[in-house]
Amino acid sequence: MATSPIIDASKALTLPEPLPLDSGRSLDGVRIAYESYGTLNAARDNAILVTHALTGDHHLVSPHPKTGKPGWWVRMVGPGKPIDTNRFFVVCANVLGSCMGTTGPASIAPDGKPWGMRFPVITIRDMVRGHVTLLDSLGIQTLHAVVGGSMGGMQALSLAANFKDRAKAFLVIASTARHSAQNIAFHEVGRQAIMADPAWREGDYYSYGKGPEKGLSVARMAAHITYLSEAGLTEKFGRRLQDRAEKTFGFDADFQVESYLRYQGLSFTDRFDANAYLYITRAMDYFDLAEEHGGMLANAFAGSRARFCLVSFDTDWLYPTAESRNVAHALTAAGLPVSFVELSAPFGHDSFLLDVPALDRVVAGFLGEAR
Amino acid sequence: MATSPIIDASKALTLPEPLPLDSGRSLDGVRIAYESYGTLNAARDNAILVTHALTGDHHLVSPHPKTGKPGWWVRMVGPGKPIDTNRFFVVCANVLGSCMGTTGPASIAPDGKPWGMRFPVITIRDMVRGHVTLLDSLGIQTLHAVVGGSMGGMQALSLAANFKDRAKAFLVIASTARHSAQNIAFHEVGRQAIMADPAWREGDYYSYGKGPEKGLSVARMAAHITYLSEAGLTEKFGRRLQDRAEKTFGFDADFQVESYLRYQGLSFTDRFDANAYLYITRAMDYFDLAEEHGGMLANAFAGSRARFCLVSFDTDWLYPTAESRNVAHALTAAGLPVSFVELSAPFGHDSFLLDVPALDRVVAGFLGEAR
Repeated sequence: MATSPIIDASKALTLPEPLPLDSGRSLDGVRIAYESYGTLNAARDNAILVTHALTGDHHLVSPHPKTGKPGWWVRMVGPGKPIDTNRFFVVCANVLGSCMGTTGPASIAPDGKPWGMRFPVITIRDMVRGHVTLLDSLGIQTLHAVVGGSMGGMQALSLAANFKDRAKAFLVIASTARHSAQNIAFHEVGRQAIMADPAWREGDYYSYGKGPEKGLSVARMAAHITYLSEAGLTEKFGRRLQDRAEKTFGFDADFQVESYLRYQGLSFTDRFDANAYLYITRAMDYFDLAEEHGGMLANAFAGSRARFCLVSFDTDWLYPTAESRNVAHALTAAGLPVSFVELSAPFGHDSFLLDVPALDRVVAGFLGEAR
Repeated sequence: MATSPIIDASKALTLPEPLPLDSGRSLDGVRIAYESYGTLNAARDNAILVTHALTGDHHLVSPHPKTGKPGWWVRMVGPGKPIDTNRFFVVCANVLGSCMGTTGPASIAPDGKPWGMRFPVITIRDMVRGHVTLLDSLGIQTLHAVVGGSMGGMQALSLAANFKDRAKAFLVIASTARHSAQNIAFHEVGRQAIMADPAWREGDYYSYGKGPEKGLSVARMAAHITYLSEAGLTEKFGRRLQDRAEKTFGFDADFQVESYLRYQGLSFTDRFDANAYLYITRAMDYFDLAEEHGGMLANAFAGSRARFCLVSFDTDWLYPTAESRNVAHALTAAGLPVSFVELSAPFGHDSFLLDVPALDRVVAGFLGEAR
């Protein structure tokens, strides 16, 4: 356990030691914003770490401070819910590189100016190093479980591979052990959209009061398409027009799907930092758990004694079932207990955030199993 | 047949009459650039119209004047090829709204300035009206066949529905009778990327010597992902690095797929007009052949006596097989002869342009059938 770190009132930890990074660099004075729910028991063995997705944060069940919307997983976490805060001590930390309280490119560097693009490129493993330091500070040696969807699942897998004694179980939802060429391609489109915006100013926009909002909005629009299924988009919007009886023969948002996407793009810029988006997508693209372990994914898990549950969704084309199956095969090859289920849900990748009762049952069942 | 139009040496037709448009507007002095290959026979019944895709043009087998690259369908059209110019008189015209010689937003308006966004919003049917006027000028009453892939297939279907006596056969490849919500969504991302670029200047960029190249490049990158299959991207690029042994922990194009996409985006801006991209994507989004015909696709084809062949590709997720099947069902319901084949090819939507020998056989077979 690290020497007693400072925990301030708003539930943020400032690391007393420099955080080493995969790039070879290190970061001094890293701040990790987090929330916790429930009570850590005397044995300190009822803690669950929930890891968040690309644009998520630690406001798991508390209202988002900028949008006022409910926490992103209120349906899953709380008293009597699948991740039951009557039973478990639940921790969620904003990832390194993000913009919701944890140190990232919008934070102030030692020279008193925002880091901007001087911030080091980070990896999923670097995010996990931050989480582990937080666990140290909370006096949690061994987690009951790590639960994460999408990029949260990557963090869970990275923690399983790199900190083998820190958790007894891992629940990985709609995720992958490595970013595919198509995944990288979509992220690259988003990054190029941001960097093409003159208001980006090579990342040095903080003093101008206005960032690359148009570019960030386009990036979010492109990404948002990948979060939904084709069938889901058809059901939700089809070719229905937005507040009009006829097409306008113009370039306004005639179609509901256009209006929806524009709203998604614009509203995202109110709550997210463009540079943070660049850094976190880069971390995801760099993620390849097999590569870190000699090219064999099974090797990543050698020596683990944890149990695993993998969940995919049949309409998720961002991280399709084959990606979860790939991880399940590697875990089996490593001799570890793994359950794997593909759930049917119409919402595409976003299914892990939405109303899928079968997921609730899988989560409650897996976490409830004693071992 | 229209009264004798002017055909200039470079194979362009200037319409003697205003072209009526679906928007209710009309366009004076429309110029249609085209190429033809082979010889029209005495009966004038051996003509094939090839219709091109979104960013295609009439340089079917001749080198592209800006890039110097071979015509876009040299593998399919020529002496002894599936569309055999020893036997057929093959015509291909640049669509209305494009930027390769046919009138579009980059053309000069009657006031002597470029149209820009003052150009009327056009539809697939408007493009087809232009083609039919060209056929009139060439003295072709009834085509042997219309052949088109992607947006070219939409033109073929629109011609079949709206000009029922003008062709005996239609070969529609990797296409659809209506743009889906997801199709519209991807196009909207591209349009927003262009319009977000300050160099777009509300479409009035022509006098500045520089258009919204960054925005257009991002639009092309996003679209390009949809033209390829996930498996094809993985096979072609995987997670391989570009000219380097290690990741750079930066934002250069570390991965081959990033480098490839950036190249696709940048090179596109050398050959295509951003406003034309806006107008043509809008025409595609507006395309819904059933809607034009009382909401029933079968009605669109009622009274036709043509025969049809529909081809889809198993890895095409832009216009997947279900879209072609939908058209086949409507044609069958209308009592028309239709053959429908899904071909296996690894290249996604782009399969119609690439080396798929099975497609060659289908095309040659369908065009070769006498009737």
